Amino acid sequence: MITADEQRQAQAYAAEQLAAAGIELTDSERDAIEVADFGLSRLREEGLIVLVYVNTDRYCAKELVLYPGQTCPEHRHPPFDGTPGKEETFRCRRGLVTLRVDGRELVLRPGEQFTIPPDTVHSFTAGPDGAVVSEFSSTSRDELDVFTNPNVRRGTVVA
Amino acid sequence: MITADEQRQAQAYAAEQLAAAGIELTDSERDAIEVADFGLSRLREEGLIVLVYVNTDRYCAKELVLYPGQTCPEHRHPPFDGTPGKEETFRCRRGLVTLRVDGRELVLRPGEQFTIPPDTVHSFTAGPDGAVVSEFSSTSRDELDVFTNPNVRRGTVVA
Repeated sequence: MITADEQRQAQAYAAEQLAAAGIELTDSERDAIEVADFGLSRLREEGLIVLVYVNTDRYCAKELVLYPGQTCPEHRHPPFDGTPGKEETFRCRRGLVTLRVDGRELVLRPGEQFTIPPDTVHSFTAGPDGAVVSEFSSTSRDELDVFTNPNVRRGTVVA
Repeated sequence: MITADEQRQAQAYAAEQLAAAGIELTDSERDAIEVADFGLSRLREEGLIVLVYVNTDRYCAKELVLYPGQTCPEHRHPPFDGTPGKEETFRCRRGLVTLRVDGRELVLRPGEQFTIPPDTVHSFTAGPDGAVVSEFSSTSRDELDVFTNPNVRRGTVVA
Protein backbone atom coordinates (compact mmCIF):
# COMPACT_ATOMS: atom_id res chain seq x y z
CA MET A 1 0.00 0.00 0.00
CA ILE A 2 1.16 3.52 -0.74
CA THR A 3 -0.34 6.83 0.29
CA ALA A 4 -1.86 9.25 -2.22
CA ASP A 5 1.03 11.55 -1.33
CA GLU A 6 3.64 8.90 -2.13
CA GLN A 7 1.90 8.30 -5.45
CA ARG A 8 1.87 12.01 -6.35
CA GLN A 9 5.52 12.43 -5.33
CA ALA A 10 6.57 9.42 -7.39
CA GLN A 11 4.69 10.68 -10.45
CA ALA A 12 6.30 14.11 -10.08
CA TYR A 13 9.74 12.50 -9.64
CA ALA A 14 9.22 10.39 -12.77
CA ALA A 15 8.05 13.35 -14.85
CA GLU A 16 11.12 15.30 -13.72
CA GLN A 17 13.51 12.40 -14.49
CA LEU A 18 11.95 11.84 -17.92
CA ALA A 19 12.22 15.56 -18.70
CA ALA A 20 15.87 15.49 -17.64
CA ALA A 21 16.36 12.58 -20.07
CA GLY A 22 14.90 14.78 -22.84
CA ILE A 23 11.65 12.78 -22.96
CA GLU A 24 8.54 14.89 -23.54
CA LEU A 25 5.13 13.73 -22.30
CA THR A 26 1.59 14.81 -23.03
CA ASP A 27 -0.55 15.92 -20.06
CA SER A 28 -2.64 12.74 -20.19
CA GLU A 29 0.55 10.63 -20.13
CA ARG A 30 1.78 12.53 -17.08
CA ASP A 31 -1.50 11.68 -15.31
CA ALA A 32 -1.24 8.02 -16.35
CA ILE A 33 2.19 7.35 -14.80
CA GLU A 34 1.82 4.12 -12.82
CA VAL A 35 3.43 3.81 -9.38
CA ALA A 36 3.90 0.20 -8.23
CA ASP A 37 4.96 -0.87 -4.74
CA PHE A 38 4.28 -4.57 -5.49
CA GLY A 39 2.18 -4.74 -2.33
CA LEU A 40 5.34 -4.50 -0.18
CA SER A 41 4.64 -1.00 1.22
CA ARG A 42 8.23 0.23 0.95
CA LEU A 43 8.12 2.00 -2.34
CA ARG A 44 11.53 3.70 -2.22
CA GLU A 45 13.27 0.32 -1.67
CA GLU A 46 11.16 -2.02 -3.80
CA GLY A 47 9.00 -0.58 -6.51
CA LEU A 48 8.84 0.81 -10.01
CA ILE A 49 7.37 3.81 -11.81
CA VAL A 50 6.07 3.04 -15.30
CA LEU A 51 4.82 4.99 -18.30
CA VAL A 52 3.30 2.80 -21.03
CA TYR A 53 3.57 4.38 -24.50
CA VAL A 54 1.83 1.58 -26.36
CA ASN A 55 0.84 -2.03 -25.73
CA THR A 56 -0.78 -3.78 -28.69
CA ASP A 57 -1.37 -7.50 -29.14
CA ARG A 58 2.03 -7.59 -30.91
CA TYR A 59 4.45 -5.23 -29.14
CA CYS A 60 4.86 -2.85 -26.23
CA ALA A 61 7.02 0.16 -25.32
CA LYS A 62 7.39 1.75 -21.88
CA GLU A 63 9.64 4.00 -19.86
CA LEU A 64 10.66 2.69 -16.45
CA VAL A 65 11.78 5.17 -13.78
CA LEU A 66 13.46 4.16 -10.52
CA TYR A 67 14.31 6.04 -7.36
CA PRO A 68 17.97 5.95 -6.27
CA GLY A 69 18.71 2.42 -5.08
CA GLN A 70 15.16 1.22 -5.81
CA THR A 71 14.79 -2.43 -6.86
CA CYS A 72 12.16 -4.03 -9.06
CA PRO A 73 11.74 -7.42 -7.35
CA GLU A 74 12.73 -10.66 -9.07
CA HIS A 75 10.13 -12.02 -11.48
CA ARG A 76 9.63 -13.76 -14.82
CA HIS A 77 7.18 -13.37 -17.67
CA PRO A 78 5.59 -16.79 -18.23
CA PRO A 79 4.14 -18.18 -21.48
CA PHE A 80 0.56 -17.15 -22.32
CA ASP A 81 -1.88 -17.50 -25.23
CA GLY A 82 0.46 -19.84 -27.09
CA THR A 83 3.39 -17.38 -26.90
CA PRO A 84 6.67 -18.11 -25.05
CA GLY A 85 6.01 -15.13 -22.71
CA LYS A 86 7.20 -11.56 -22.83
CA GLU A 87 10.65 -10.93 -24.31
CA GLU A 88 12.01 -7.49 -23.42
CA THR A 89 14.91 -5.18 -24.18
CA PHE A 90 16.05 -2.74 -21.50
CA ARG A 91 17.90 0.33 -22.73
CA CYS A 92 19.33 2.67 -20.11
CA ARG A 93 18.60 6.35 -20.79
CA ARG A 94 19.75 8.08 -17.62
CA GLY A 95 21.51 7.10 -14.41
CA LEU A 96 22.58 3.50 -14.06
CA VAL A 97 20.78 0.20 -13.63
CA THR A 98 22.13 -3.11 -12.40
CA LEU A 99 20.33 -6.01 -14.03
CA ARG A 100 20.34 -9.54 -12.62
CA VAL A 101 19.25 -12.12 -15.17
CA ASP A 102 19.20 -15.81 -14.35
CA GLY A 103 22.07 -15.45 -11.87
CA ARG A 104 24.16 -13.19 -14.08
CA GLU A 105 24.68 -9.52 -13.15
CA LEU A 106 25.35 -6.65 -15.52
CA VAL A 107 25.37 -2.88 -15.31
CA LEU A 108 23.73 -0.72 -17.99
CA ARG A 109 24.72 2.91 -18.45
CA PRO A 110 23.06 5.42 -20.83
CA GLY A 111 23.08 4.03 -24.39
CA GLU A 112 23.61 0.43 -23.24
CA GLN A 113 20.94 -2.25 -23.59
CA PHE A 114 20.23 -5.91 -22.91
CA THR A 115 17.51 -8.30 -24.09
CA ILE A 116 15.93 -10.64 -21.53
CA PRO A 117 14.55 -13.89 -23.00
CA PRO A 118 10.97 -14.90 -22.16
CA ASP A 119 10.24 -16.74 -18.90
CA THR A 120 13.65 -15.89 -17.40
CA VAL A 121 13.96 -14.64 -13.79
CA HIS A 122 15.33 -11.13 -13.48
CA SER A 123 15.41 -8.13 -11.17
CA PHE A 124 17.00 -4.71 -11.43
CA THR A 125 18.24 -1.95 -9.15
CA ALA A 126 18.92 1.72 -9.89
CA GLY A 127 22.23 3.37 -9.05
CA PRO A 128 22.67 6.26 -6.58
CA ASP A 129 21.13 8.81 -9.00
CA GLY A 130 18.11 6.69 -9.90
CA ALA A 131 17.49 5.51 -13.47
CA VAL A 132 15.39 5.95 -16.58
CA VAL A 133 15.16 2.79 -18.70
CA SER A 134 13.31 2.35 -22.01
CA GLU A 135 11.66 -1.04 -22.36
CA PHE A 136 10.90 -2.44 -25.82
CA SER A 137 9.09 -5.79 -25.79
CA SER A 138 6.52 -8.18 -27.10
CA THR A 139 3.01 -7.71 -25.68
CA SER A 140 2.98 -6.90 -21.96
CA ARG A 141 0.60 -8.69 -19.58
CA ASP A 142 1.88 -7.44 -16.20
CA GLU A 143 -0.86 -9.26 -14.28
CA LEU A 144 0.66 -12.60 -15.34
CA ASP A 145 4.15 -11.87 -13.97
CA VAL A 146 5.44 -14.49 -11.54
CA PHE A 147 7.41 -13.02 -8.60
CA THR A 148 9.88 -14.95 -6.46
CA ASN A 149 8.71 -13.21 -3.26
CA PRO A 150 5.30 -14.73 -2.44
CA ASN A 151 4.23 -11.49 -0.69
CA VAL A 152 4.28 -9.52 -3.94
CA ARG A 153 0.95 -8.27 -5.29
CA ARG A 154 1.13 -6.73 -8.76
CA GLY A 155 -1.78 -4.36 -8.20
CA THR A 156 -0.92 -1.34 -6.04
CA VAL A 157 -3.40 -0.15 -3.41
CA VAL A 158 -3.45 3.62 -2.85
CA ALA A 159 -4.64 4.52 0.66
CA MET B 1 22.92 6.44 -55.03
CA ILE B 2 24.60 8.61 -52.42
CA THR B 3 28.23 9.58 -52.06
CA ALA B 4 30.36 8.41 -49.14
CA ASP B 5 30.44 12.07 -48.11
CA GLU B 6 26.65 12.33 -48.05
CA GLN B 7 26.53 9.18 -45.96
CA ARG B 8 29.06 10.49 -43.44
CA GLN B 9 27.31 13.86 -43.23
CA ALA B 10 23.94 12.22 -42.68
CA GLN B 11 25.33 9.96 -39.95
CA ALA B 12 26.92 12.95 -38.22
CA TYR B 13 23.66 14.94 -38.54
CA ALA B 14 21.69 12.05 -37.04
CA ALA B 15 24.12 11.60 -34.14
CA GLU B 16 23.88 15.33 -33.42
CA GLN B 17 20.05 15.34 -33.58
CA LEU B 18 19.81 12.27 -31.34
CA ALA B 19 22.20 13.87 -28.84
CA ALA B 20 20.08 17.04 -28.89
CA ALA B 21 17.06 14.84 -28.11
CA GLY B 22 18.93 13.48 -25.08
CA ILE B 23 19.48 10.07 -26.71
CA GLU B 24 22.86 8.51 -25.97
CA LEU B 25 24.48 6.03 -28.37
CA THR B 26 27.34 3.60 -28.10
CA ASP B 27 30.20 3.96 -30.59
CA SER B 28 29.14 0.86 -32.50
CA GLU B 29 25.59 2.22 -32.81
CA ARG B 30 26.94 5.51 -34.17
CA ASP B 31 28.80 3.53 -36.85
CA ALA B 32 25.69 1.47 -37.67
CA ILE B 33 23.39 4.43 -38.48
CA GLU B 34 21.74 3.58 -41.79
CA VAL B 35 21.32 6.26 -44.44
CA ALA B 36 18.63 5.46 -47.05
CA ASP B 37 18.01 7.40 -50.26
CA PHE B 38 15.55 4.76 -51.55
CA GLY B 39 17.49 4.66 -54.79
CA LEU B 40 16.19 8.14 -55.75
CA SER B 41 19.55 9.98 -55.41
CA ARG B 42 18.12 13.08 -53.74
CA LEU B 43 18.69 12.25 -50.13
CA ARG B 44 17.82 15.63 -48.61
CA GLU B 45 14.38 15.57 -50.27
CA GLU B 46 13.47 11.87 -50.11
CA GLY B 47 15.25 9.68 -47.63
CA LEU B 48 15.54 8.54 -44.06
CA ILE B 49 18.23 8.01 -41.45
CA VAL B 50 17.67 5.00 -39.19
CA LEU B 51 19.16 3.58 -36.02
CA VAL B 52 17.88 0.10 -35.13
CA TYR B 53 18.05 -0.61 -31.39
CA VAL B 54 16.64 -4.11 -31.58
CA ASN B 55 14.76 -6.26 -34.09
CA THR B 56 13.79 -9.71 -32.82
CA ASP B 57 11.30 -12.13 -34.37
CA ARG B 58 8.65 -10.52 -32.11
CA TYR B 59 9.28 -6.75 -31.87
CA CYS B 60 11.47 -3.93 -33.09
CA ALA B 61 12.55 -0.48 -31.89
CA LYS B 62 14.30 2.21 -33.94
CA GLU B 63 15.03 5.91 -34.02
CA LEU B 64 14.23 7.68 -37.28
CA VAL B 65 15.99 10.96 -38.07
CA LEU B 66 14.95 13.28 -40.91
CA TYR B 67 16.57 16.33 -42.47
CA PRO B 68 14.45 19.50 -42.55
CA GLY B 69 11.67 18.95 -45.09
CA GLN B 70 12.85 15.41 -45.90
CA THR B 71 10.14 12.88 -46.85
CA CYS B 72 10.10 9.14 -46.38
CA PRO B 73 8.29 8.03 -49.55
CA GLU B 74 4.86 6.40 -49.42
CA HIS B 75 4.91 2.68 -48.68
CA ARG B 76 3.17 -0.11 -46.80
CA HIS B 77 4.31 -3.11 -44.80
CA PRO B 78 2.66 -6.17 -46.36
CA PRO B 79 1.78 -9.45 -44.62
CA PHE B 80 4.59 -12.00 -44.29
CA ASP B 81 5.18 -15.36 -42.59
CA GLY B 82 1.54 -15.66 -41.60
CA THR B 83 1.54 -12.23 -39.86
CA PRO B 84 -0.62 -9.28 -40.99
CA GLY B 85 2.53 -7.22 -41.69
CA LYS B 86 4.40 -4.71 -39.58
CA GLU B 87 2.33 -2.60 -37.19
CA GLU B 88 4.21 0.48 -35.98
CA THR B 89 3.91 3.35 -33.52
CA PHE B 90 5.63 6.64 -34.34
CA ARG B 91 6.42 8.88 -31.39
CA CYS B 92 7.87 12.31 -32.13
CA ARG B 93 10.87 13.18 -29.96
CA ARG B 94 12.18 16.38 -31.53
CA GLY B 95 11.11 18.75 -34.29
CA LEU B 96 7.87 17.99 -36.06
CA VAL B 97 6.69 15.31 -38.43
CA THR B 98 3.67 15.32 -40.75
CA LEU B 99 2.29 11.83 -41.20
CA ARG B 100 0.03 10.84 -44.09
CA VAL B 101 -1.79 7.58 -43.44
CA ASP B 102 -4.28 6.19 -45.91
CA GLY B 103 -5.23 9.67 -47.17
CA ARG B 104 -5.42 11.22 -43.69
CA GLU B 105 -2.83 13.79 -42.58
CA LEU B 106 -1.71 14.50 -39.03
CA VAL B 107 1.11 16.41 -37.37
CA LEU B 108 3.10 14.96 -34.49
CA ARG B 109 5.04 17.19 -32.12
CA PRO B 110 7.36 16.02 -29.31
CA GLY B 111 5.46 13.67 -26.97
CA GLU B 112 2.75 12.89 -29.55
CA GLN B 113 2.40 9.48 -31.17
CA PHE B 114 0.31 7.54 -33.67
CA THR B 115 -0.01 3.84 -34.47
CA ILE B 116 -0.13 2.78 -38.14
CA PRO B 117 -2.01 -0.48 -38.80
CA PRO B 118 -0.29 -3.21 -40.85
CA ASP B 119 -0.41 -3.07 -44.67
CA THR B 120 -1.57 0.59 -44.70
CA VAL B 121 0.01 3.14 -47.08
CA HIS B 122 1.82 5.97 -45.32
CA SER B 123 4.51 8.57 -45.82
CA PHE B 124 5.97 11.25 -43.57
CA THR B 125 7.78 14.56 -43.86
CA ALA B 126 9.86 16.45 -41.32
CA GLY B 127 9.18 20.08 -40.43
CA PRO B 128 11.63 22.96 -41.03
CA ASP B 129 13.90 21.88 -38.13
CA GLY B 130 14.02 18.20 -39.09
CA ALA B 131 12.70 15.49 -36.81
CA VAL B 132 13.62 12.65 -34.47
CA VAL B 133 10.93 9.96 -34.26
CA SER B 134 10.97 6.80 -32.13
CA GLU B 135 9.44 3.81 -33.85
CA PHE B 136 8.07 0.90 -31.79
CA SER B 137 6.75 -2.00 -33.86
CA SER B 138 6.30 -5.66 -34.52
CA THR B 139 9.21 -7.34 -36.34
CA SER B 140 10.72 -5.18 -39.08
CA ARG B 141 11.47 -6.65 -42.53
CA ASP B 142 12.39 -3.49 -44.47
CA GLU B 143 13.24 -5.46 -47.62
CA LEU B 144 9.56 -6.43 -47.97
CA ASP B 145 8.21 -2.83 -47.94
CA VAL B 146 6.04 -1.98 -50.94
CA PHE B 147 6.59 1.57 -52.23
CA THR B 148 4.12 3.51 -54.39
CA ASN B 149 6.91 5.02 -56.54
CA PRO B 150 8.15 2.17 -58.78
CA ASN B 151 11.62 3.76 -58.95
CA VAL B 152 12.26 3.20 -55.25
CA ARG B 153 14.95 0.68 -54.31
CA ARG B 154 15.17 -0.13 -50.60
CA GLY B 155 18.88 -0.89 -50.62
CA THR B 156 21.08 2.23 -50.78
CA VAL B 157 24.15 2.22 -53.03
CA VAL B 158 27.09 4.26 -51.70
CA ALA B 159 29.32 5.51 -54.52
